Amino acid sequence: MRITALAGGIGGARLLRGLLAQQAELAQPGEVTVIGNTGDDIWLFGLKICPDLDSVMYTLGGGASEERGWGREDETFTVKEELAAYGVEPTWFGLGDRDLATHIVRSQMLGAGFALSAVTAALCQRWNLGLRLLPMSDDRVETHVVIADPDESSGRRAIHFQEWWVRHHAEIPALGFVQIGNDKARPGPGVLEAIESADLILLPPSNPVVSVGPILGVPGIREALLAAKAPIVGISPIVGGAPVRGMADACLSALGVETSAAAVAAHYGARTAGGILDAWLIDERDSAALPEIQALGMRAAAVPLLMTDLFATKAIAAAALSLTS
Amino acid sequence: MRITALAGGIGGARLLRGLLAQQAELAQPGEVTVIGNTGDDIWLFGLKICPDLDSVMYTLGGGASEERGWGREDETFTVKEELAAYGVEPTWFGLGDRDLATHIVRSQMLGAGFALSAVTAALCQRWNLGLRLLPMSDDRVETHVVIADPDESSGRRAIHFQEWWVRHHAEIPALGFVQIGNDKARPGPGVLEAIESADLILLPPSNPVVSVGPILGVPGIREALLAAKAPIVGISPIVGGAPVRGMADACLSALGVETSAAAVAAHYGARTAGGILDAWLIDERDSAALPEIQALGMRAAAVPLLMTDLFATKAIAAAALSLTS
Repeated sequence: MRITALAGGIGGARLLRGLLAQQAELAQPGEVTVIGNTGDDIWLFGLKICPDLDSVMYTLGGGASEERGWGREDETFTVKEELAAYGVEPTWFGLGDRDLATHIVRSQMLGAGFALSAVTAALCQRWNLGLRLLPMSDDRVETHVVIADPDESSGRRAIHFQEWWVRHHAEIPALGFVQIGNDKARPGPGVLEAIESADLILLPPSNPVVSVGPILGVPGIREALLAAKAPIVGISPIVGGAPVRGMADACLSALGVETSAAAVAAHYGARTAGGILDAWLIDERDSAALPEIQALGMRAAAVPLLMTDLFATKAIAAAALSLTS
Repeated sequence: MRITALAGGIGGARLLRGLLAQQAELAQPGEVTVIGNTGDDIWLFGLKICPDLDSVMYTLGGGASEERGWGREDETFTVKEELAAYGVEPTWFGLGDRDLATHIVRSQMLGAGFALSAVTAALCQRWNLGLRLLPMSDDRVETHVVIADPDESSGRRAIHFQEWWVRHHAEIPALGFVQIGNDKARPGPGVLEAIESADLILLPPSNPVVSVGPILGVPGIREALLAAKAPIVGISPIVGGAPVRGMADACLSALGVETSAAAVAAHYGARTAGGILDAWLIDERDSAALPEIQALGMRAAAVPLLMTDLFATKAIAAAALSLTS
């Protein structure tokens, strides 16, 4: 079986770890391809940083910090301190020494003319992910957040998503999101094929706005999903009216989407109604929303969705797979 | 008094520290300008590394590793380990985490269009050197070492100086040195002025071939020295027939220059005979060579030249200054 997943950062990565563990117990494990979000990429200090690709890589490669939820385990921040000592901005980005090596290799390869997809494949060789990780696009796409700014004549300005997310902890109200470069971005090598040839397409519990949203915004990807022969199953990132982790609520509200499992399902929409979902897996505590979700025109089920350990995460992956028919 | 010094790495840097300490005791301390060698610069991992400029900066800024003789104190090598884990070459270069921040800032600024001289001035702001550090040139110059290679049809090939020095410990016989880019390099901003306006010009005990040599090789610099009104005083890097530190002997032999204080004096030559030296300070154990050196047409004196501590180094600087007349 070929499984293709659209993933953001740590939430998606952890679900994928459960999926691989679940597949490993099968007589014929599926081949998993991940289309990774690059919308939160940022150039800092002359280096290209791909937080979501790296979260998937580190988490599945066994190099992620489990308690921090981003970056590498056994991390140090010597270079970051030294950059600050030089007075170099920004100082708010969490740039670890181990993590930095990834950005250095990536930037050097990009500078040598390799595409991000080729660079990502090269980096992944070290980590033995057990799956194929494809950037959604080789073209530069950057999510910016529109915030109020009375000093601007327009009354608003856009800042990079990372500045809003990491520096401001998403506490400044987002008036909207702009995917700079998304309209001209082309799907990365293998991306459309991975959707077309899939037997199952999975939306892990990633942020619908800033993780899955930029992937869907690459011209051709949403169309490929609409045309895919495979069922598309999503897993709600919203549990009990709040994001499991991260600040998806601050993103959803900017789009006028309620922070609820049902509202996110409606945001994606049912394939029977021009959307991208055939099925939606929600947490058991949201089970009262099942009829509402099913009324959208998709299958739905409620199971425990907290990825507390690998056993629980395997069960979530299995539940998602069982929703295909 | 304006003192201008031509310096390589750690040997030059330590002498400069003694010079500044010696000057600080004067009622009117001299203003010191250092023309730094950039011939051993190298691009690694997409980053511009300037070992000699950094040795001067770290040593005078109080951030150098005293026992290691290169790089930063309290250094860690996490990024280097991670780069090796990615299989990225080379693995032989000693790239510390603290040191790396310097290269990142430098590379980012170069990438933004700043000249190396402007970048160096910006980096030096942090370190409060007590002197002005000028790269010999803003243009790229790289010392390469010609070595024998039976696999090449010519029987020889050139490798970067750092590969020869750091990886091979200068143990492969050097057939010659090539200063790539030197013939087209222009003196950096302020370099010629620092020579022309100097009251004293100093050659600290830096490697004559790969530290001072590339500086002299920048068109215009040797000519400015020949025309300078200031006396030019050199301090021998050779003590008792061997380099005080480093592997200058392996460099000198490639040029057919004996590893002795007198031979290096003859290599630079007396200004009275078309060379660049008015005076040459040697170690007391080489005092038998004083007549031979004086016969070249320059003043000479013998004092203890080992920079064992700041007190000894101050005395060396004072002895060099007293040789001007």
